[in-house]
Amino acid sequence: MHQRILRRHIRKGTLGLVLPDGRRERYGEGEPAAEWVIHDPKALRRIAADPDLAFGETYMEGAWSAGEGGLVRLLEVLLTNFPLRHERGWRAALKRLWQQGNRIARSRRNAAHHYDLDEWLFRRFLDREMHYSCAYFARPDMTLEEAQEAKARHIAAKLLLRPGMRVLDIGSGWGSLARHLARHHGVHVTGVTLSKEQLRVARAWAEAEGLADRLTFRLEDYREHRGRYDRIVSVGMFEHVGQPQYRTYFERARELLAPDGVMLLHTIGRLGPPTTTNAWIRRYIFPGGYNPALSEVAAAIEEAGLELCDVEVLRLHYAMTLAHWQARFQRHRDEVAERMGERFARMWEMYLAIAEASFRWSDMVVFQIQLARDRTAVPLTRDYLYRGEGAQAPAARGAA
Amino acid sequence: MHQRILRRHIRKGTLGLVLPDGRRERYGEGEPAAEWVIHDPKALRRIAADPDLAFGETYMEGAWSAGEGGLVRLLEVLLTNFPLRHERGWRAALKRLWQQGNRIARSRRNAAHHYDLDEWLFRRFLDREMHYSCAYFARPDMTLEEAQEAKARHIAAKLLLRPGMRVLDIGSGWGSLARHLARHHGVHVTGVTLSKEQLRVARAWAEAEGLADRLTFRLEDYREHRGRYDRIVSVGMFEHVGQPQYRTYFERARELLAPDGVMLLHTIGRLGPPTTTNAWIRRYIFPGGYNPALSEVAAAIEEAGLELCDVEVLRLHYAMTLAHWQARFQRHRDEVAERMGERFARMWEMYLAIAEASFRWSDMVVFQIQLARDRTAVPLTRDYLYRGEGAQAPAARGAA
Repeated sequence: MHQRILRRHIRKGTLGLVLPDGRRERYGEGEPAAEWVIHDPKALRRIAADPDLAFGETYMEGAWSAGEGGLVRLLEVLLTNFPLRHERGWRAALKRLWQQGNRIARSRRNAAHHYDLDEWLFRRFLDREMHYSCAYFARPDMTLEEAQEAKARHIAAKLLLRPGMRVLDIGSGWGSLARHLARHHGVHVTGVTLSKEQLRVARAWAEAEGLADRLTFRLEDYREHRGRYDRIVSVGMFEHVGQPQYRTYFERARELLAPDGVMLLHTIGRLGPPTTTNAWIRRYIFPGGYNPALSEVAAAIEEAGLELCDVEVLRLHYAMTLAHWQARFQRHRDEVAERMGERFARMWEMYLAIAEASFRWSDMVVFQIQLARDRTAVPLTRDYLYRGEGAQAPAARGAA
Repeated sequence: MHQRILRRHIRKGTLGLVLPDGRRERYGEGEPAAEWVIHDPKALRRIAADPDLAFGETYMEGAWSAGEGGLVRLLEVLLTNFPLRHERGWRAALKRLWQQGNRIARSRRNAAHHYDLDEWLFRRFLDREMHYSCAYFARPDMTLEEAQEAKARHIAAKLLLRPGMRVLDIGSGWGSLARHLARHHGVHVTGVTLSKEQLRVARAWAEAEGLADRLTFRLEDYREHRGRYDRIVSVGMFEHVGQPQYRTYFERARELLAPDGVMLLHTIGRLGPPTTTNAWIRRYIFPGGYNPALSEVAAAIEEAGLELCDVEVLRLHYAMTLAHWQARFQRHRDEVAERMGERFARMWEMYLAIAEASFRWSDMVVFQIQLARDRTAVPLTRDYLYRGEGAQAPAARGAA
C-alpha cells in the first residue's frame, strides 16, 4: 500500500526507504534526498491513517529513524511532497475554542507541562543566558550566543528605554531578557511566569549577578497582574495565550501600559490563514498552544484600542536558531536519554526538527509587533533601530 | 438646542461660536481653541441631525466657516470632543458589501469622478512630480518636494530593484513613481490607471523626459491586466479597491508576480477595527473608497498565498503632507474658485482638512506592506533600508 501512496506523492526530491526486512525502495529523484529507515512493519500504515499524531508517536516509540541527512532532511522531503493539511474556516474556529480555551488554571498546567522540566535539560541546548526564543542573526555568521544577544539589543531598541523606567516582562522565562535590560539600560523589570522552575532559576540568577534590586519575578498569570508600566515586553509567551484570549490579552496589556508607554510583542506566527495546532505538538510539547496568523493578532489589537506602530517579520531566523539548538542537543543526547529516557530524547529531537522544518519549508515566521497607546510615543521613522552597526552596539543607541 | 449639546460635549479645549445674529458663545476652556462662525441659522440643526453628511455639505454651501485657526483647528476641537461614530460588526460588513462592491465598470466611474478632474487643479497643490500620496519625512524639516522624493527612494529600496527588471505600477497616477524608478533604477515600468486624464498626462510627461522607451502606461483595471513582473508597486490605489475585492486584488497580484518577485503596497489604513467610509467622503470625494484595518488586509494576503515580509506604519507623515497640500491650495484658492466654482473650492479645502485631521487626531495611518511569493526574496534583516543617510541617497543603495 505505501508504495502506491509514495509513488503518487513524491514529485520533488528523493525518498529512500529501508524496510524492516532490509529491502530498499526509492521514490522520486534529485535533491533534496532523504532516507527513511523503518523498523516496525506497522509504522507506515499507522502514519498513513493519522499522520498528524502518528508520525511523531511512531518516532518516539522507535518504530523508525531517519537515515543519512537526519530528521530535518527527511521532513524537508516529506513536507515538500505532502504539504500539511490545514484546518480552516468554522471548523478550525470551533477547535480553537475548545483546544485553546486557556483559563488561568489550565494555563498553569500547560506551562508546567513544558517549562517545569528540569533546568538541566534546557541548559543542554540553549545559549548561556537561556533565551528560549528566536534569535536575531544580524549577520548570518553569528554564533548562537551573539545572535541571542543581538535579539535582546534589537528588542531593547524597539522599546525606546530610558534609565529608571519600569518594564513588565510577560512570560519572563529564566529571566534572560530581564537581566539584559536591567544590566544595559538601568531599568527595573518585573517578570511574570507560570513556571515554578523558571521562577526559582530567574530569582537565583538575579541574586547571583547582583541584580536583585532591579529585577522582580512573580509566579502570576498576565490576567492576575496589576500595575502600570512604562514599557511591556512579551517574548515567546503569546504562543501559549490561545486565540480565544487574544482580545483579553491586549486589553490587559493596554491597562498595564502607561499612556505614553510602548510595548513589544515577539511571537511565532504563520503566514497562511488561521488554522489549528498540530495534534502531536499539542499533546506532547505545547498543550493549549497556537501560532497565530497576523490577521488574528491585528484584529485583537484593533479591538483593544492599542496602536500598532511596526511589524517586523523575522523569516528563517528561527530555523537558524533551531539548527543551533538541535546541534547542541545532539552533543548531549546520550546524557539526556540516560537521565530522561530514550523516549523523551526522541520526542525532544523530533520537536526541534519539526520546528526547524516548519520555519524553513512551511509558513512559520516570527512577528515582532511594536505597540503604543499613543502613536507619537514612537519615532516617525525606523532609522533609530539601525544606527551604528548591523548588530546595534548598545553605545550607539545612547542607552544608559 | 445646540447650547445643551455643546455644553455637555466640549470637555477639552475651547469652542467659540459666532451665531448669525452676531452673538458669541463659548464652550469649554484652554487649548486647543477654535472658532466656528455660523452664517445660516439652520446649519447647526442640520449637522446635529446627520453629522456625517451635513457637516461637509453645509460647509460647501457656505452655511458656516471656520474662524481663527482655520478648518483643521476647528476639526481638532470637534474630533476631540465628538469622536467619530464608527459602524462595526455585521452592519458594517453588509454596508461594505454594497458600498464597495466595485466591479470593473463601477471602478472606472469611481476613478473618473476624482482623477479625471483637470490636471490643472492637482498642480495647484501637489509637488512638482505630482505624487498624490503620503510623503516620507525622513527628516521633519524636509520640503514637500524632498519628502516626496524620499518616499519614492524608500519605496524603491523596499522593492530591491536591479536594472532591467520589469515593474508593474498598479494605480500609476500621473506617472510620478514610475518616472522615478525608470530614471534612477534602469527598470521598465508598466503603469495601469483608470483615469484618462492621468493616462494622457503620464504619457506626455514620459515622452517629454525621454523616458518613453522605459515607461508604458495603460488605461486598465488591475483585474484586466495580464503579464508577469519582477516587481509590483501600488501606491495610494488600494484605497479604491473596496474590502469585498481584497482577496481578488491579492490573488491577481500573486499571478502577476514572478516566483522570486517582490511587491510593495502603500495604502492608507486605520488603526481601529474594520468600519465603513464616512458618508460625505463617499459621496463627494472618493465613491467606492475604503481605508482598511490591517486585520482585513492581512486576512486577504494570507488567503491569497502571498508572504508578508514587513509592515511599516507611517504615522503623521500624511498629516504633514496634507498640511503642505492645504497651504499650497490656499495660495491658489481664488483661481480655483474662479475656475471651478466657490462650492468646489470649499469642498476641496474641506476634503484636505478632514484628511489632515484624521491623520492627526483620529486613527488614520499609512501601511507600507512588503510582500513576496517566496520569503527568501527579501533580506533577513531590514538594515538594507537604512544604510547611508536617513533619506537614503540612491548611490548608497548600489542602484543602477
